[in-house]
Amino acid sequence: MKLARALAAETLGTAFLLATVVGSGALADKLDLGNLAVSVLCVAFATGAVLIALIAAFGSISAHFNPIVTMVLALRGEFSWKKVAPYFVAQVVGAILGVVVANLMFDLPAVTISATTRTGMGQWLGEFIASFGLIGIILGSARSNSNTGIAVPAYVAGAIYFTSSTCFANPAVTISRMFTNTLTGIVPADVPAFVLSQVVGALCAAAVFGWLFAAEKYTEETVSELSEVDPAVLATLERELAAANK
Amino acid sequence: MKLARALAAETLGTAFLLATVVGSGALADKLDLGNLAVSVLCVAFATGAVLIALIAAFGSISAHFNPIVTMVLALRGEFSWKKVAPYFVAQVVGAILGVVVANLMFDLPAVTISATTRTGMGQWLGEFIASFGLIGIILGSARSNSNTGIAVPAYVAGAIYFTSSTCFANPAVTISRMFTNTLTGIVPADVPAFVLSQVVGALCAAAVFGWLFAAEKYTEETVSELSEVDPAVLATLERELAAANK
Amino acid sequence: MKLARALAAETLGTAFLLATVVGSGALADKLDLGNLAVSVLCVAFATGAVLIALIAAFGSISAHFNPIVTMVLALRGEFSWKKVAPYFVAQVVGAILGVVVANLMFDLPAVTISATTRTGMGQWLGEFIASFGLIGIILGSARSNSNTGIAVPAYVAGAIYFTSSTCFANPAVTISRMFTNTLTGIVPADVPAFVLSQVVGALCAAAVFGWLFAAEKYTEETVSELSEVDPAVLATLERELAAANK
Amino acid sequence: MKLARALAAETLGTAFLLATVVGSGALADKLDLGNLAVSVLCVAFATGAVLIALIAAFGSISAHFNPIVTMVLALRGEFSWKKVAPYFVAQVVGAILGVVVANLMFDLPAVTISATTRTGMGQWLGEFIASFGLIGIILGSARSNSNTGIAVPAYVAGAIYFTSSTCFANPAVTISRMFTNTLTGIVPADVPAFVLSQVVGALCAAAVFGWLFAAEKYTEETVSELSEVDPAVLATLERELAAANK
Repeated sequence: MKLARALAAETLGTAFLLATVVGSGALADKLDLGNLAVSVLCVAFATGAVLIALIAAFGSISAHFNPIVTMVLALRGEFSWKKVAPYFVAQVVGAILGVVVANLMFDLPAVTISATTRTGMGQWLGEFIASFGLIGIILGSARSNSNTGIAVPAYVAGAIYFTSSTCFANPAVTISRMFTNTLTGIVPADVPAFVLSQVVGALCAAAVFGWLFAAEKYTEETVSELSEVDPAVLATLERELAAANK
Repeated sequence: MKLARALAAETLGTAFLLATVVGSGALADKLDLGNLAVSVLCVAFATGAVLIALIAAFGSISAHFNPIVTMVLALRGEFSWKKVAPYFVAQVVGAILGVVVANLMFDLPAVTISATTRTGMGQWLGEFIASFGLIGIILGSARSNSNTGIAVPAYVAGAIYFTSSTCFANPAVTISRMFTNTLTGIVPADVPAFVLSQVVGALCAAAVFGWLFAAEKYTEETVSELSEVDPAVLATLERELAAANK
Repeated sequence: MKLARALAAETLGTAFLLATVVGSGALADKLDLGNLAVSVLCVAFATGAVLIALIAAFGSISAHFNPIVTMVLALRGEFSWKKVAPYFVAQVVGAILGVVVANLMFDLPAVTISATTRTGMGQWLGEFIASFGLIGIILGSARSNSNTGIAVPAYVAGAIYFTSSTCFANPAVTISRMFTNTLTGIVPADVPAFVLSQVVGALCAAAVFGWLFAAEKYTEETVSELSEVDPAVLATLERELAAANK
Repeated sequence: MKLARALAAETLGTAFLLATVVGSGALADKLDLGNLAVSVLCVAFATGAVLIALIAAFGSISAHFNPIVTMVLALRGEFSWKKVAPYFVAQVVGAILGVVVANLMFDLPAVTISATTRTGMGQWLGEFIASFGLIGIILGSARSNSNTGIAVPAYVAGAIYFTSSTCFANPAVTISRMFTNTLTGIVPADVPAFVLSQVVGALCAAAVFGWLFAAEKYTEETVSELSEVDPAVLATLERELAAANK
């Protein structure tokens, strides 16, 4: 029953995430008079905002919404391998559901196949960097327990704008966006290279940030508590302690 | 007297919410040279920002600002049915007041009737999804007590952009926006279907998210919830403690 | 010496606030190809963002940055009347300093007199509403100690967009913006009516929100302290309560 | 080993910061139909958002990302002079790495030399003000321990819009942006004056804000800071202190 709830949270959350990406792209593209810089800003703004809400709402149950996140957590021994396959299914099903809802909201057929080409070294590097950074932000902010629920959406919103590929960084997102012939779609032929770039980026991040953030052997609690203490206060206390211990 | 204050908070808060939606739409539409993608972004930005402020200011008294929120809380036994009707009145009166203020601020007649058609399956689905998600975010973030005051405004800002109907998701909002013939208005004939979609969305959300979030019977959550405990609860505890210690 | 620091904080903070409003308006207006909806969004975004930073940095010393805020706090007995006049001077001097810096940054003369007309019932109502709301948000979020440092900047950012006058809501801001003939300036002849609207809005807010938020007779301290209470403290209280009740 | 991790964090963080600035500028500029007000907004939005994420992720290890921040902390005795040179190298190397990645993502040569002139008293004043404010916000928000992780990114996002120079405020950023002939580049000849303005602004800030924020020797502030310390940590420290004092 607990797994059922986790899978429902993954499905619903990923569905809302995709409805946001595809819906905001469809609305903005219809109205922007050709100024795509505005449309991408609208997608970034809406996606970041809704992601804040989704993590706040679903975070206490499950809020990966992304197969590479699930994969990295399993590799790190922080998530059971037995649940990985059902999570993947829930995320992909949710993502497609979200795309279908977005299509229907804008009076398009439930499913259309995208004709938008997204390919080339530049965009693959974009996906590698976007995914590498996403895993880094998740591991780093979780480690220091600081603001994860804001940090991850903020990163995603920013990465939509700074990467040449507009930050898919998520295989479920990539697969589902084949099914909409709107601004945010991707032609099926270009999906495999995107997903590969994402997986490679995530694995590199697991190695690099695994080393970087595993260093200091504080327990989780220590880090989060100390990180909110004013250093000056702590220093005073420690000095007094040292003096008293002499 | 406590109810009077709660009703005043609902009226004032809903008034500011509508002044924001209608006012920002009027200002942006006047200046955007026809690029409506910019105007919708401005409405989303302003509405999300002001909603953060309204919840922070009125939250300790009452901050539903929305009849479907009041309805769902009553259905869940978390809000007294006796107060539902006065709340509805306060919210609708506040909403209309806010629209009138917005009209007057932009040198328009206090009340004009909108001629903007908003209808069709796509937009009704938009309202269903927007309302379904809004209730889900409220119940989910309240349950885990994480960032509700940011999560709900962030969702609303995002949903203005990702839904085909630009996220009314609120019967008081819908009714009042009949009374402005500016960018954010709605022709009276289209109001009933919008309100119906919102109510159905909210009821479905109450069922789905009621199951999803009711699962764990106050285990790890309890602790985190207590950490943000309402001062009134604490005061009661302390008073009882003092009395018992006498 | 403590007053000197408070006045320095008011001067520096108000200077940065005005440099932001006038500077962002000048930059955006130069680049927006006539789409003023974009320029106003940029001013709102920059002002809200910088205000978050200013309150975080100066809040522990003094962060009114606004004569009507100082006035209302004095009226409520929460600020010494003796410091009101020096605060006004510091705020106006800081504001003018900020405008001068903005002018110089954009290679304009240090002082130019604005020719931008801002007048009429609609805009005066805009200033009344903007100021009324600002005081309400400050009193309300301070009372419940929830997110004041975000709520006030969020309100200001939103109010720049939803009011017909683009939310001056601050006599120091209004006076200083006479001295720049750029997008955000105001012709001197229109200043008195703006300031009057702001003062009246603030006084009405002091009355209305004074009643609304004064209800529960917690002292300021109680509210702020209890609202951040640690679960461990609570647990202790509850345990003692249980023991005492045996 | 601890220093290696700190340097890795500085390199990676500064690289992501520059990839964001240069990447978002390149994407927006390609799409904005000449409306540069939109492009600058996109750079400000993306940079602020990603900076929130970077500080959350790397803050518990090291998150200066800026030589003038490192310099000021060393001057204040809060950072070891021995680590200053390696930090500078890590920051500049990271910054150039980020620019190279951005160039490659957008299918440009790894390194191109910018031809964008950025010079004149107005822009030098812009850099002075941007740097002066940045150091002020960092020292002020750190002192009161309020929201540093949001305040600094919010300031940077706002300052990109309110300064005539679009807020470089960082010598590593300035040096690296020579190496991209895109919207956010700077011609090499104009780098020294920018860096000089930044250093002078930072030194002035160290003097002014050093006085402003050093004033009160742990009086009322201490209490408020302690109120955010985890009681369990404090209790442990106090217990140890008491035991040692016996």
